[in-house]
This record gives sequence, structure tokens and C-alpha cells, in this order.
Amino acid sequence: MTSHPISGYTRVYAHFAYPSEHVRTPGVFNAYFRRRGIDAVCIPVKVAPAGLAAAVAMCRSWENLAGIGVTMPHKETIAGLLDERTEGVRRAGASNVIKRLPDGRLLGGQLDGYGFVHGLKTNGFDPAGSRALLLGAGGSARAVAMELALNGIAALRIANRSRDRAEALAADVRREFPELAVSVADASTVQDATLIVNTTSVGMKPDDPLPVDLSGLTPQVTVADIIMKPEVTPLLEAARERGCAIHPGLQMLVGQLDVTAEWLDLAPAREAVGDMAVAR
Amino acid sequence: MTSHPISGYTRVYAHFAYPSEHVRTPGVFNAYFRRRGIDAVCIPVKVAPAGLAAAVAMCRSWENLAGIGVTMPHKETIAGLLDERTEGVRRAGASNVIKRLPDGRLLGGQLDGYGFVHGLKTNGFDPAGSRALLLGAGGSARAVAMELALNGIAALRIANRSRDRAEALAADVRREFPELAVSVADASTVQDATLIVNTTSVGMKPDDPLPVDLSGLTPQVTVADIIMKPEVTPLLEAARERGCAIHPGLQMLVGQLDVTAEWLDLAPAREAVGDMAVAR
Ligand SMILES: NC(=O)c1ccc[n+]([C@@H]2O[C@H](COP(=O)([O-])OP(=O)(O)OC[C@H]3O[C@@H](n4cnc5c(N)ncnc54)[C@H](OP(=O)(O)O)[C@@H]3O)[C@@H](O)[C@H]2O)c1
Ligand SMILES: NC(=O)c1ccc[n+]([C@@H]2O[C@H](COP(=O)([O-])OP(=O)(O)OC[C@H]3O[C@@H](n4cnc5c(N)ncnc54)[C@H](OP(=O)(O)O)[C@@H]3O)[C@@H](O)[C@H]2O)c1
Repeated sequence: MTSHPISGYTRVYAHFAYPSEHVRTPGVFNAYFRRRGIDAVCIPVKVAPAGLAAAVAMCRSWENLAGIGVTMPHKETIAGLLDERTEGVRRAGASNVIKRLPDGRLLGGQLDGYGFVHGLKTNGFDPAGSRALLLGAGGSARAVAMELALNGIAALRIANRSRDRAEALAADVRREFPELAVSVADASTVQDATLIVNTTSVGMKPDDPLPVDLSGLTPQVTVADIIMKPEVTPLLEAARERGCAIHPGLQMLVGQLDVTAEWLDLAPAREAVGDMAVAR
Repeated sequence: MTSHPISGYTRVYAHFAYPSEHVRTPGVFNAYFRRRGIDAVCIPVKVAPAGLAAAVAMCRSWENLAGIGVTMPHKETIAGLLDERTEGVRRAGASNVIKRLPDGRLLGGQLDGYGFVHGLKTNGFDPAGSRALLLGAGGSARAVAMELALNGIAALRIANRSRDRAEALAADVRREFPELAVSVADASTVQDATLIVNTTSVGMKPDDPLPVDLSGLTPQVTVADIIMKPEVTPLLEAARERGCAIHPGLQMLVGQLDVTAEWLDLAPAREAVGDMAVAR
């Protein structure tokens, strides 16, 4: 383990959140930087929506800033404050990692979807050919849906409390991936799904109900959650009891470590990620 | 040793410099935070003068920011960008540590002088009664001069390359401390000094000359430098060879650790520092 004390040479990865107390990103990234001997530090930046534009403006002049990580509630808003965006940001309508270019311009990227699918693959599940049931239609749902589509799932069914958001997301996925069978679910039931992904925030609070009716769940179904606290949500717990393979939300963050460090020029690039081309 | 990994609860102490590569503050403060079990991190913020106003603006919305440390070339400029300042800032015309108040307002403080004198005292030298020769009349010289005056030196003589700056500083010290004998030196010679303090940057580069003619230096004279790199400057080396007590620049930074942490509410306050009253 190489450990860099913070010095005047250290590059900063600022993580924007509001509130910030619950975030796991600084801990996970700093352990990663230490492990790989990268002279960088990830710090929490608690900034309210009203202060976001000022925070972004500062980042243009912050010369040892490598980039910005973004989470709730800033991902959509920040995408509109940047100088350039990748294809992935254009597609997802949100940015979760921003690169500070040497001249100070800010280039928004989107690695949530990549991190999610990379996490699945690293942990032994390739979503290609799956019939996916996506719970939720918010910012993360959009990133996950687009990346699953990119990775060759056979069908996508979207279930969301607000049906209009599910319809809107379905329409957007269809426009980007006209070949894919995309539908909106009437109810959150398993049916013929082989992959279930929860992207709602249901499961964060101790007395939350399950986000999906699990009757009909067989051990052949893979169940993933993107919630990180608790590490194993009640949904995952119930699926595990039924013999299903489960994928906790931390995988989605861990799945972004290498690609983020490489894209921010903190580590040598090994793999090109298609969606990181700059959007025209 | 208590060590806090950086989490969403960690408070940030941002250190503004340009350039920032040479700074010692992050290393010294982070070791101190670890030693005292304080959940805070000091990070370098490399920002050019043109970006300073934007950086200050962001800090108002950065809710987990405890404060800002400031060094060259920003100490004077930043004092004009803040919402409030202490007596010490008014007197020194510069701020080296800024406290973010809970409502986001920024309160500029000045602890360079305190750190310098506290460092001397901690290391066994009380400047009270000294006849001080101050080399330099820049921002740090001003802070050091005012604090030496506050601490009961018998006389102050100021020698500077640009004589007009020495005259201006002498006039300011006289106005604040009408009782003190303040003079401007014709040449940088020891004469009757019992304390010599170098606040010029002469001694940072390997082939710099000495900032003062040392003929006439006796072992009774105490010699201090505020340069931190190299840790022992040629001036201190020469003084040590002549049998003088020496005080390296790192003491001035170390002398500020407790008072900074306490003033930024990162540690319980133990000692009140007079100059930290808010200026009217
Ligand atoms: N693992 C990771 O790396 C990672 C990354 C990003 C986010 N996350 C987590 O992902 C979750 C969602 O984040 P997001 O940015 O996508 O949020 P978002 O855009 O606000 O979307 C929230 C989603 O949850 C649904 N929802 C909220 N409360 C609900 C309730 N009581 N009943 C039913 N549905 C409800 C919303 O439905 P409506 O449309 O009806 O409001 C919407 O579909 C959060 O828990 C976040 O911490 C994890
Ligand atoms: N130990 C600490 O905690 C600490 C804290 C703050 C600063 N410092 C150090 O203190 C030093 C001064 O900082 P500052 O903020 O006071 O800078 P400043 O305001 O720019 O003042 C620089 C001083 O050095 C003099 N000087 C510069 N080059 C010279 C030369 N070639 N020959 C003769 N005199 C020269 C200037 O004289 P003129 O007026 O003629 O230009 C002026 O008196 C720096 O080395 C800095 O790193 C240490």
C-alpha cells in the first residue's frame, strides 16, 4: 500500500452533495487512491442547490482540482452549468463526474451506468440477454437503463410510482435504442424478469416497504439495488433468502473507481468507455 | 493517535496559494488533526489571483468548510473580499486564516504574528524587552512587527530593500503603538539588536546572499527566520555557527496550529487571542 500524505502537489476530487453526511464516495475513493498510489484526495463538498453555480464557477480556477463527483440533488442541474458534456451526459440528462480540463473548462461525464454494469460483470453477472425490470425512473434509473440497453439486454420493463416519468424514460430509451423492446409496467411485479434493478430510494429508511412484489421470484432471477446505505437492503435480503444472486449498491460505486481515475488523468488509461466521447 | 478517514462528516480547511506546490501547511495541519483526533482535512487549493474572487464566493456556500488558510500572493487581496475582519487583520492589512461562519459569512483573521511569537515562546524565547531588528517590510513583516510590539519589545528597527515600505510600516506601527521606539535602518547591520527576524524571501533560493551583514553578531543575539524551505536557511546556519539561538520558520506555522483549530471551532477553545476581536 502506497500512501501519499496530502501536499501542495496533491490533486483534489471534490464530491458535491446535499446533504453530504451520508455519502460513501470519499471513503471509497480515498482507499482506492491509497491502494493504487495515486496522489489525490476526495473530499466532501456540502453545497445547497442555491450555491451550486458559485461552486462550479470556482472549480474553473481551482488548478489542482482533478474533477468533481456529483450526487443528489445536483446531477441534473449541474449538467446545464458545464462547458462541455459527453455523449453519456446528453443521453442520461445528468452528470455524475466532471473533468477539469487544463485550461479550466469543465467537461461533464456520466459513469453511473457504466459503474453499475461493470459492477455486475466484475461480480460474475453479464446482463446481455436479460429481461430487465427497472424499478424507478429518476436520474439513476435513466443512467442504468441506457447502459443496460448498450449492453445488449433483451427487454426492458420500467415500473415507477409516477407513471408519466416511466413513460418519458421509456420513450427516451426507445429513441436511443430503437431495436430494444421497452415497456412500462402496470404494477411492480416480477413476471418474466430475469434481472431486477431497484433504483428508487425505497429501502433507505428502516420501515420502507419492498419496492416490488416478490411473489413469483425464482432463484434464477438476479436482483440488484443501487442503494448504498444500508449495504444490504430489505429487497436484497429477501431475494437472498429466496436463493437469488444479489448485487448491492456499493458495487456501482466500486465499479466506477478505475474508469473515473483514468478519465480524470489520475491513472494511466487502460480501457476506452464509448459514452465518454464529447457530445456535439 | 486517532485517525479519521475522510467521510461526509469531515470538515475541510482549504489552503489557498499560488503556486501551491511548495506549501507545507497541508502536511503540518493534517498531521496535527490526526494527532488531536479532529475530523478535518487540509487540502491545497491552487488558485491564481484572477480566480480568487470566485473561489471566495464558493466558500460562502461550502457548508462543511471550516475555513480558509491563505498564503502568497493572496493575503492582502483576500482581506478586501471578506464579510468581516478581526482587529488583527485591520492592523496587519492582510488575512492568513478565514473562518466560515454558520450562516456562510466569511470572517478574516490574522494569526501569522501570533504564530511567530507563540513559536518563539514555546521554544524558550520571550521577546519582551528585546531590541528587534526586522528584515523586510512585506505582508509577513507587518504581522510580525505588530505582534512583537504587542508582546512588549523595547525597540523595533526595520530594514528593507525598498526604504519607502519600511517607512510606511514604521509609521503604521507607531500609530498603533505610540509608546514603542520604532526606527528605519539605513543598512542591514546588527548594531545593538538582541533579536533579528528575517521576513524577506532572501534565503529561499540556494545562491541567495545573507539578508543582513552578520559582522558584530554575538552569541547573545537570537536569530529567527520565517522562511520554511529550506528548513534551516543560510542565515540561521551562520547564526548557529556563531553560537546564537536560532528559530526556523516552521515554528511560525506550528505556533498557529492550536489557535487556528480553536478559532475555527474544530477544537475546544483554551486561550483567547486579543487580536481576534471583530474590527468595527
Ligand atoms: N450506488 C450508487 O453508486 C448510486 C449512485 C447514484 C444514486 N444512488 C442511489 O439511488 C437512489 C435514487 O437516486 P436518484 O438520483 O435516481 O434519485 P431521483 O432522481 O430523485 O429518483 C428517485 C426515484 O425513487 C422513486 N421514489 C422515491 N420515493 C419513493 C416512494 N416513497 N415510493 C416509490 N417510489 C419512490 C421516485 O419515484 P417518482 O418518480 O414517483 O418520484 C424515482 O423513481 C438513491 O437511493 C441514491 O442514494 C446510488
Ligand atoms: N513561516 C511561516 O509560517 C510563514 C508565513 C508567511 C510567510 N512566510 C514566508 O515569508 C516570506 C515573505 O512573505 P511575505 O508574504 O511577507 O512576502 P511579501 O509581502 O512579498 O514581502 C517580501 C519581502 O521580501 C523582500 N525581498 C524580496 N526579494 C528581495 C531581494 N531580492 N532582496 C531584498 N529583499 C527582498 C521584499 O522587499 P521589497 O519591499 O523591497 O520588495 C519584502 O520586504 C516568504 O518567504 C514566505 O514563504 C512564512
